[in-house]
Amino acid sequence: MTYCLAIKVDDGLVFASDTRTSAGVDDVRTYNKLHISETAGERVFVVLSAGNLATTQWILNAIRRDLDQPDAPVSLRSVRHMYDAAEYVGTLSVRAQKESSAYGQYSNVDFRTTLILGGQILGEEPSLYLVYPEGNCISVSPETPYLQIGESKYGKPILDRIIRPSTSLEDATRCALVSLDSTMKSNLTVGPPLDVAILPRDALRITHKLRLDIDTPYYAALKKAWGENLERVFRNDLPKFEWEGDPQQHSML
Amino acid sequence: MTYCLAIKVDDGLVFASDTRTSAGVDDVRTYNKLHISETAGERVFVVLSAGNLATTQWILNAIRRDLDQPDAPVSLRSVRHMYDAAEYVGTLSVRAQKESSAYGQYSNVDFRTTLILGGQILGEEPSLYLVYPEGNCISVSPETPYLQIGESKYGKPILDRIIRPSTSLEDATRCALVSLDSTMKSNLTVGPPLDVAILPRDALRITHKLRLDIDTPYYAALKKAWGENLERVFRNDLPKFEWEGDPQQHSML
Repeated sequence: MTYCLAIKVDDGLVFASDTRTSAGVDDVRTYNKLHISETAGERVFVVLSAGNLATTQWILNAIRRDLDQPDAPVSLRSVRHMYDAAEYVGTLSVRAQKESSAYGQYSNVDFRTTLILGGQILGEEPSLYLVYPEGNCISVSPETPYLQIGESKYGKPILDRIIRPSTSLEDATRCALVSLDSTMKSNLTVGPPLDVAILPRDALRITHKLRLDIDTPYYAALKKAWGENLERVFRNDLPKFEWEGDPQQHSML
Repeated sequence: MTYCLAIKVDDGLVFASDTRTSAGVDDVRTYNKLHISETAGERVFVVLSAGNLATTQWILNAIRRDLDQPDAPVSLRSVRHMYDAAEYVGTLSVRAQKESSAYGQYSNVDFRTTLILGGQILGEEPSLYLVYPEGNCISVSPETPYLQIGESKYGKPILDRIIRPSTSLEDATRCALVSLDSTMKSNLTVGPPLDVAILPRDALRITHKLRLDIDTPYYAALKKAWGENLERVFRNDLPKFEWEGDPQQHSML
């Protein structure tokens, strides 16, 4: 599995992913799942991927090939709107899966890949799309300001509690890291190092790209502070039950 | 779905569950999933259930019938060890599923039920078992001091961060409630009211049994305090990135 997420706040976009790729517990590797295509000042795209690695690499290579070919009918350079970019990537994804299935029709391999495509084109709003294996897509909304792919359940509650359109880019980044950290603690198929990219609104370039390993000072400090603060909240800051302090009294609420 | 959990700490056991039962999104009901069988001063058992409701009710009725029959070959009154109780409940579960399958072999209904059985028998340690649909079981351990059944992923990270054998019964109860609350926020198939039972070590009776709805004062206060504290931690208590405070500086970590 994998866990990737992207968040849209008023100030811009945050992307984050783990890097663990596994084909069974005895075949574990590290792969970058956060891919950036940037024409600074004009357009920035970030692709996050979860699913079949060969399909993902097929898609990424096709994106690159189309970018290199000035006469490609569509490419991330030529699309006018972010939605067009999402449709284009969706089309590539369907094509990749179709090709693999043609040869692999008698195998049980799952060729599907789910993608998050986000970014901004000059003159447009920053936006985020989740591209399904079927090639269609959905965007974020103010009520649902984040998208997740892969092993998404463990890290969802903290996003639901913290992320609002008004959240700062840095707090959104910290929240993405806590969400990833919680998932790594609970699920072996999601693993370090973590990749993060921050795209502030109208910057039209990735201002911060981080790779954080378990022992990277910032990540270690964040993990420690988060764990200690949660414990402190539980120890001191939550309401007591009626009977606490008087162990003989067994009143009901 | 459902979400139930049980925690073993040095001071005793905590049981908690939601009450939502659904057979499709248009058939949602409220059922108690936390069942207590208590002979005060001698033995206390608590059963939590997730899965087919008919199978669960079959098992609970069989437990009750065996308790009423003084000559039943096995019952929760006669078992000597908690492990025997778990095996007994597992046997009932397998029998219930077998009976239903005999009539329903051409349907696609899933007759399985997963149970948590916990409690204490006078002279024994308090203990917790997860009883699989196949009838076998596993217990908690000091390294894994809690068990979950049903929709378990959303609420797992907070348990992993907070629950230790030394955690107090009350903090463990608050943690169980936060775990359930996070799950309810993220998944519609888990819903209020919540049931909680606390069995202190060697008390040999349930000292506190609570039913908490969204607007029960304690639960409302806990939700509020938890949400506000998390937001405060994010706002004030997590390490800042190097570039924060100086938006012009785009240093990497």
